[in-house]
Amino acid sequence: MQSSRLEAFSDGVLAIIITIMVLEMHLPSDKDGHTFHAFFDHTGLSLLTYLLSFVYVGIYWNNHHHLFQVSENVDGVVLWANLHLLFWLSLFPLSTNWLAESHVARDPTVLYGINLLAAAVAYFVLTLAIQRLPGGGNLQEALGGSGKEKISPPLYVLGIGLAFVSPWLGLIPFVVVALMWLVPDRRVERWLQARDEMPKV
Amino acid sequence: MQSSRLEAFSDGVLAIIITIMVLEMHLPSDKDGHTFHAFFDHTGLSLLTYLLSFVYVGIYWNNHHHLFQVSENVDGVVLWANLHLLFWLSLFPLSTNWLAESHVARDPTVLYGINLLAAAVAYFVLTLAIQRLPGGGNLQEALGGSGKEKISPPLYVLGIGLAFVSPWLGLIPFVVVALMWLVPDRRVERWLQARDEMPKV
Amino acid sequence: MQSSRLEAFSDGVLAIIITIMVLEMHLPSDKDGHTFHAFFDHTGLSLLTYLLSFVYVGIYWNNHHHLFQVSENVDGVVLWANLHLLFWLSLFPLSTNWLAESHVARDPTVLYGINLLAAAVAYFVLTLAIQRLPGGGNLQEALGGSGKEKISPPLYVLGIGLAFVSPWLGLIPFVVVALMWLVPDRRVERWLQARDEMPKV
Amino acid sequence: MQSSRLEAFSDGVLAIIITIMVLEMHLPSDKDGHTFHAFFDHTGLSLLTYLLSFVYVGIYWNNHHHLFQVSENVDGVVLWANLHLLFWLSLFPLSTNWLAESHVARDPTVLYGINLLAAAVAYFVLTLAIQRLPGGGNLQEALGGSGKEKISPPLYVLGIGLAFVSPWLGLIPFVVVALMWLVPDRRVERWLQARDEMPKV
Repeated sequence: MQSSRLEAFSDGVLAIIITIMVLEMHLPSDKDGHTFHAFFDHTGLSLLTYLLSFVYVGIYWNNHHHLFQVSENVDGVVLWANLHLLFWLSLFPLSTNWLAESHVARDPTVLYGINLLAAAVAYFVLTLAIQRLPGGGNLQEALGGSGKEKISPPLYVLGIGLAFVSPWLGLIPFVVVALMWLVPDRRVERWLQARDEMPKV
Repeated sequence: MQSSRLEAFSDGVLAIIITIMVLEMHLPSDKDGHTFHAFFDHTGLSLLTYLLSFVYVGIYWNNHHHLFQVSENVDGVVLWANLHLLFWLSLFPLSTNWLAESHVARDPTVLYGINLLAAAVAYFVLTLAIQRLPGGGNLQEALGGSGKEKISPPLYVLGIGLAFVSPWLGLIPFVVVALMWLVPDRRVERWLQARDEMPKV
Repeated sequence: MQSSRLEAFSDGVLAIIITIMVLEMHLPSDKDGHTFHAFFDHTGLSLLTYLLSFVYVGIYWNNHHHLFQVSENVDGVVLWANLHLLFWLSLFPLSTNWLAESHVARDPTVLYGINLLAAAVAYFVLTLAIQRLPGGGNLQEALGGSGKEKISPPLYVLGIGLAFVSPWLGLIPFVVVALMWLVPDRRVERWLQARDEMPKV
Repeated sequence: MQSSRLEAFSDGVLAIIITIMVLEMHLPSDKDGHTFHAFFDHTGLSLLTYLLSFVYVGIYWNNHHHLFQVSENVDGVVLWANLHLLFWLSLFPLSTNWLAESHVARDPTVLYGINLLAAAVAYFVLTLAIQRLPGGGNLQEALGGSGKEKISPPLYVLGIGLAFVSPWLGLIPFVVVALMWLVPDRRVERWLQARDEMPKV
């Protein structure tokens, strides 16, 4: 299978995930009144958690693309590793919704962290599956030995741990990771550029 | 019509089906409490049935692609055979939801099996429609004479039958078929590869 | 703007319309019981109206594609004529849902007919807009002078009229038009084929 | 990253936004009766606000395309500027829904105006980000010095201000801007055409 078709399907799923989260937000009812006061009470928190998950899906969309720049064809293992990642990402609307509906209670914060962690692990498994492919060694070389991939999971675990102290405290590492990733990953781009500029022998 | 456009439309529909199933899951209410205990009670089963249907849609997406590798153009019969397949797949969110909401009652399990069976039949009809096309004989050759396509429908019927004994028992064949298909179909790939490697006379 | 991009966007919208209609179907509640009896009572009619609208969206998707085979570039008028068509098609989930929820009452049947009629008119306006383009004369030639486009609107009007006698009677012309269109439109294909086979002077 | 992939993803998100707004419309219940009278009471206003937001998303889809005609590659800044725009557009279903549900109350009208204003600002930021790219100067040249971009934000602010006098009065500038933009933006097209017609020295 060509990686372009896998990318198009993944883009479709990510576009839907990022958009349907909005459907889960609840507006104030007629009884609550249609005022900004009622809006902030009933919808304000949903907006913030939506923003956080929107950034996360945006990050995965951005990084997902880089992964497939090194290889034109994928096999069944990569295909299912990719669906495995999409599965965890598809749960973001659910875990985000619970986080907001519970007004950031302990267990929903832990679940949100577990969801983030599972998606990160699935992403890591996907990179391993791609590295198996012909030309996949380039990806390993491009991603190098250290980086944001390695710092994110411990920060998710930290957030999960902190949630048991205070759920709001637990959210801080999740926000920090999102901010950290907002700076797009230029390593693959750099590597590709370096390769193109390399003198042909 | 070019098969690429039909594939893109089908990919879009499958991406939406696989994602909107999440919207059907219900979270614990404020009254139930926002604890893992309440989450497992209210959402746990939905997660499992979602996972099962997610895998099935993933399987159809994967196999769907192989079908159209042998032919570049499609006619009206293939087009409607494809829409017929998409119709049954589009009912997965409904039948999956009923299965979870009823806590795996008998009739919802039977309906889920019927939905799986109808999709399998629609897929088979689609392969017949493609084999009619110029070059479609290749597909028949590639799929060969035996295989997972032939084992799946009897297993769905078995599951439907077992559901009358015990709904949970009926789910087993459905899970078995999903696991069986998780190993991607390499037969078409192999056939294409064999053809490419064949010495040109 | 290239027509390919307009087609891709329209395909996306149609794929979403055809899929989210499923979200509007209501399952029997715990109180109704999770039996086939309750399912047919609460969901059976929705399934039938869903099937009808599914076929209609399928028809529009199929025919939409033919329209843009004659021209590679589109202008602003075509773009908005296309969005105008998508607007009416996007109301199908709403009018279909009302038809089912009201158990085929008079006014919802009339509204469904109006929706079908409005989409047909929007489609006709779109063909006019495309005929204005360079090369658009071909479309007029290909569609010829008589055909299903001319029979459909009167049948919608007939259905709307009959709905005032009996809503179920009013549905008959809507079903007839759908069946009539299920045979895909080969006229454009034929015209393109004829042109390709024409001896080059 | 190639701009074509960013466009495809954005198209997907816009197609979903424009379609799921329909899911937010409420039909009359059995108690209200299934009559046109009840329909206009419960759904009529939603239809009008849906139409307005449909036109706005259509406008953004149309203009979005023009932006990326001048540059084939995008960097991380453009990517996040684009996601920033999509974020505000993804809130349209929410703000449109509140506007309709509140029967055009003051605060929801103000929020709708803020949403329009934020999307316009995000669009402006995106044009700045693209102008930074190699070849981006062309965009600046093409958009010229005056135009609809400059008139829209003050009109949104006017609408927000007027909403404090009367919400319905506040909607007028929002409708005026939509009508103003319905005439598609031919400036970029003209500039590209002019460039192509320029004599090559």
